[in-house]
Amino acid sequence: MKKHNFNAGPSILSQYAIEETAKGVLDLNNSGLSILEISHRSKEFTAINDEASSLLRELLDVPQGYSILFLQGGASMQFCMVPYNLLNKKASYLDTGTWASKAIKEAKLFGEVVVVASSKDSNYNFIPKDYKIPADSDYFHITTNNTIFGTELKKDLDVSVPLVADASSDIMSRPMDVSKYALIYGGSQKNIGPSGTTFVIVRDDILGKVERPIPSMLKYSTHIAEQSLYNTPSCVALYSAMLNMRWLKNEGGVKAAYKRNIEKAELLYNEIERNKLFKSTIPNEEDRSIMNVVFIMNDDYKDKEEEFLKFAQGQGIVGIKGHRSVGGFRASIYNAMPLSSVQVLVNAMKDFEAKL
Amino acid sequence: MKKHNFNAGPSILSQYAIEETAKGVLDLNNSGLSILEISHRSKEFTAINDEASSLLRELLDVPQGYSILFLQGGASMQFCMVPYNLLNKKASYLDTGTWASKAIKEAKLFGEVVVVASSKDSNYNFIPKDYKIPADSDYFHITTNNTIFGTELKKDLDVSVPLVADASSDIMSRPMDVSKYALIYGGSQKNIGPSGTTFVIVRDDILGKVERPIPSMLKYSTHIAEQSLYNTPSCVALYSAMLNMRWLKNEGGVKAAYKRNIEKAELLYNEIERNKLFKSTIPNEEDRSIMNVVFIMNDDYKDKEEEFLKFAQGQGIVGIKGHRSVGGFRASIYNAMPLSSVQVLVNAMKDFEAKL
Repeated sequence: MKKHNFNAGPSILSQYAIEETAKGVLDLNNSGLSILEISHRSKEFTAINDEASSLLRELLDVPQGYSILFLQGGASMQFCMVPYNLLNKKASYLDTGTWASKAIKEAKLFGEVVVVASSKDSNYNFIPKDYKIPADSDYFHITTNNTIFGTELKKDLDVSVPLVADASSDIMSRPMDVSKYALIYGGSQKNIGPSGTTFVIVRDDILGKVERPIPSMLKYSTHIAEQSLYNTPSCVALYSAMLNMRWLKNEGGVKAAYKRNIEKAELLYNEIERNKLFKSTIPNEEDRSIMNVVFIMNDDYKDKEEEFLKFAQGQGIVGIKGHRSVGGFRASIYNAMPLSSVQVLVNAMKDFEAKL
Repeated sequence: MKKHNFNAGPSILSQYAIEETAKGVLDLNNSGLSILEISHRSKEFTAINDEASSLLRELLDVPQGYSILFLQGGASMQFCMVPYNLLNKKASYLDTGTWASKAIKEAKLFGEVVVVASSKDSNYNFIPKDYKIPADSDYFHITTNNTIFGTELKKDLDVSVPLVADASSDIMSRPMDVSKYALIYGGSQKNIGPSGTTFVIVRDDILGKVERPIPSMLKYSTHIAEQSLYNTPSCVALYSAMLNMRWLKNEGGVKAAYKRNIEKAELLYNEIERNKLFKSTIPNEEDRSIMNVVFIMNDDYKDKEEEFLKFAQGQGIVGIKGHRSVGGFRASIYNAMPLSSVQVLVNAMKDFEAKL
């Protein structure tokens, strides 16, 4: 039976990326070698690395003056790399969830950290909007989409200090004005590719301003100088990410993806509103993520949670169990998720309501 | 035409690992999902992570009291993680090549580094044996195999301070007495699997002794506590490494691999000695690597280098161009390289000699 993969990440990828990766594992472009065993210094892999970087630049319309990197270690490694490279004295952070608070924890090892606002007291069910960023902050750090809690900051902020964003889970879901950011990073395992590669988009002129010694591997300039090939990358993961970005481009790019994402999110949020069994955990519509739709059972039906999970599973729906911090359900509907799969979930919700 | 892959890394893997990885990319064990898109928290992936760890423990006969980790960032990231976690005041290093000297460079950011001996002045063509390790060293760091220069330290040293080894390019090539080491690490892209995963074998009691704050991702104890799943790993790379270790076990494990490796290395070194065109760059036989066989043209035939490379290419031989630091040729004959491919190379050397 066809599976509808609503996992939060690693998550659904395009069938094109999956099939072409499998071919490349057996024989990369008729080279007689597997992508698992070719040298990262070969002309074949250099072409893959270049195409991945060009596709990211094109898809996000990255301006001149920014470098694009593919590293390892995920957003978790960036939580320390960002302050290592950028925090001289003081940095400001917006605390909108588990990942933001992990980023805050790491930054504190490097200097003063001002948490300008937090929605922790209400289990992160909204994005704070009223706050003041100290003008002497080396940077202001945001998490654009909160995978666990299902909130999203859907616009590019105008702030007076360098803006740094963890965009792991909504990169390429909507057109973004990259010029408003000093640095954007994320794990690739949502909209870009499989796990194992980490993207960083960094404005070159913000680097080189801290005085602490930085280990080579943790220094952005090391990787910029070597076009991400200072050390051996996760070749197969990057190949697969490149293929998936190629697919996205062929599907009309980020603008077209955004249109589809809005349509999918509306279909699902509308059903959550309509269906008497379910409700959203995010009161403010404007804060609701179009990538991770978090919802719970209405109070009268709390005991039906397990039953609904099983019912959905019977329809081939996987990965909708909510994170333990919220409970209930989470449907991650990343770029590669087709509307038809969201419709299957919506139908399951309707059918389950009808049979109660 | 079948390719004989002598690349230094990423490098040849078993056909079993390649074919099974391709299947898992299309559909992992009939789960209906690709290894590229399953959650790293799923029971399917937990089983893969557990099997990889158990296989490494079994293949290297790792004693109790040691943890096994699969991380990201390769040996290059370990060059800073080792001193971050272990260097309090002073560490000693043996300088046997490019990778050792990179490790030394990173360690210097964390404390006093004593280079007990170096073969740099003779372009790293031997492994120094006469040196004294300061008794107050927090650890002594060696590089067991020097991929670029083709030298190898083929025994487990007895030293009086904790022994740390970068074994990226000879791990699992010979039985190793792990109990003599405090920490062994390496990129996996030689004998273990594809690039994208990094192994660490660490004796638990050497941790927790430094006072500096360590970012979570760079702290071994973070990853030990979470069985390498503190953050999302490179799932497909780890899957493929697990498959390749499963293959090695089925082939008789490390002891049987060692026997094959000796046979392959002897075949090739003997031909280098016999053939009038070629010579080894390593005068001392005991120092010659059984993983990376480095050789050059004899002085009278220096101008035939390109011609031999082309001739070999015509026989399906790839990846034997030497590293620019040494020139000439390098044949990497890792565990997955069959004797028959080494024979193809030896035949090419004979045939080329005959036709001159």
